Amino acid sequence: MHPNVEEAARRLAGRVRRTSVLSSRRFNEEFGVEAFFKAESFQTTGSFKFRGATNALLQLEPELKSRGVLTFSSGNHGQALARAGREQGVAVTVVMPEDAPEVKRRAVAGYGGEVVLYDRSELSREALGREMAAERGLTIIPPYDYADTIAGAGTAAWELIQETGPLDALVVCLGGGGLLAGSALAARQLSPGCRVFGAEPAGADDGARSMRSGQIETCDNPQTIADGARTPFVGKLNFAIMQELVESVETVTDDELRAGVRWAASGLKLAIEPTGALAMAAVMKGAIPQGRVGVLISGGNFDPAVLAEILAG
Amino acid sequence: MHPNVEEAARRLAGRVRRTSVLSSRRFNEEFGVEAFFKAESFQTTGSFKFRGATNALLQLEPELKSRGVLTFSSGNHGQALARAGREQGVAVTVVMPEDAPEVKRRAVAGYGGEVVLYDRSELSREALGREMAAERGLTIIPPYDYADTIAGAGTAAWELIQETGPLDALVVCLGGGGLLAGSALAARQLSPGCRVFGAEPAGADDGARSMRSGQIETCDNPQTIADGARTPFVGKLNFAIMQELVESVETVTDDELRAGVRWAASGLKLAIEPTGALAMAAVMKGAIPQGRVGVLISGGNFDPAVLAEILAG
Repeated sequence: MHPNVEEAARRLAGRVRRTSVLSSRRFNEEFGVEAFFKAESFQTTGSFKFRGATNALLQLEPELKSRGVLTFSSGNHGQALARAGREQGVAVTVVMPEDAPEVKRRAVAGYGGEVVLYDRSELSREALGREMAAERGLTIIPPYDYADTIAGAGTAAWELIQETGPLDALVVCLGGGGLLAGSALAARQLSPGCRVFGAEPAGADDGARSMRSGQIETCDNPQTIADGARTPFVGKLNFAIMQELVESVETVTDDELRAGVRWAASGLKLAIEPTGALAMAAVMKGAIPQGRVGVLISGGNFDPAVLAEILAG
Repeated sequence: MHPNVEEAARRLAGRVRRTSVLSSRRFNEEFGVEAFFKAESFQTTGSFKFRGATNALLQLEPELKSRGVLTFSSGNHGQALARAGREQGVAVTVVMPEDAPEVKRRAVAGYGGEVVLYDRSELSREALGREMAAERGLTIIPPYDYADTIAGAGTAAWELIQETGPLDALVVCLGGGGLLAGSALAARQLSPGCRVFGAEPAGADDGARSMRSGQIETCDNPQTIADGARTPFVGKLNFAIMQELVESVETVTDDELRAGVRWAASGLKLAIEPTGALAMAAVMKGAIPQGRVGVLISGGNFDPAVLAEILAG
């Protein structure tokens, strides 16, 4: 049984933001499509991750909720889970490496999460996390390879297609595959003819290779400014859904990504993170068929220095 | 008779974008207000000016429409009028100085407007414009000192208050006073107890001085990064409305403005022009009473180099 996006959409209504769908006549003229941008940069905590985190906590049994949850993520999932925990009264522990940027530690703490640091050279975070979870009775909430996370993530595309009606294509960035798998499930149900594409950094192209080889490939040393898509491999559950419902994964160079971030700022007036521009950049490079195209913008938690450098371009 | 914002709102429905109203729990916690941001950066042509331009053309008699219109503006009003003209089949001439940035000339031309350049040192643009208008039978559409422009501009606040319900305060940037006067009229009708404030650059504080002296003061050499608020004096019609309905005009330094632009990008995920951050910066500096506060974000047509420099800050 696939994760149920429709039920997640009902469950999350009123608990997550129904983010804007934007369009731009200039974008359409320039790139020969009719694009609809779903701006998850406006989601609570600045990324779509709040959907999956909220859904996962809502699905947890009361007994487990009262003990608390744990995740490994120095990025958007950790912040999203911390905030979702605060909303639902669930204690959240986020495990991140000692060298994680101070700003990310403060973000999790600011949302009320407990940050636990570990030494990358001594411990694997999985071993540490499993040990802590067992000791304290915490439930681990994975960032993507998890049915409730996938179903929650899929509600962004669900809302998008509800608003736009049937689409010819849907483009979604790919890291671990939660947003892509959830979006594909939403499209299958609401717009059955819609072709679904992933968009991935060229320097972290494990997803594209996995789709071609038919098995999960890894990327050991991802090189890309899209830090949200540096995951070394896609999730098992995600990959099964991708194989069934995703046509292909297109890759985008860092320069193409920078052009996407610049276009989002000057044309759409959105300040977004490089990962958030992956799907848009795939459209801009002509990798996606023409027609009515849904474009997921995954998040807006940029580093100001990086955005400044890209805009100065 | 004041300009009628309610009628303009009915007239513009479906012709201008109903732009998003955003909020941020972090902003509210940090600045002790409950703020509602009306993001006119998402308006067609990237600023609220499209509302006034569209309204003005819709109000023009068919005979005059067929002859065409003219305006002086190298900024957002010129672009907005050119685009509104394209939508309504009206020929638009935009008069700008020879040294206007190439990007602004191209923007007007891109929307289908005709650009006429003049030599600042030889001609006053008013004299030139009046002469051209008379010769060609064109109607001049002023950027702010004009009832239909004011009524159209006021529809942004109209939509905002319709969505939020009554407000304690409303803050609006001030250049020529079109947005401020229109917003004040909207607030008077939809939220009678709401206190209305202008926000102006400290380096172009003619509006604040005018409010204090009771007559229109000028600013001969405006010094501010908020190029949309460099107008040397407010309009007559606008000032009469301001005197009646606006409590005060608060000033904002360029550094405070930069902080506003940064907050808009990192917190609200909006890429906006410095002028667009005036009202927000006034709230951030504590110049506006606490409570439920409406904040107009006027536009997003930034110069990428300037935004990059501000973000690198």
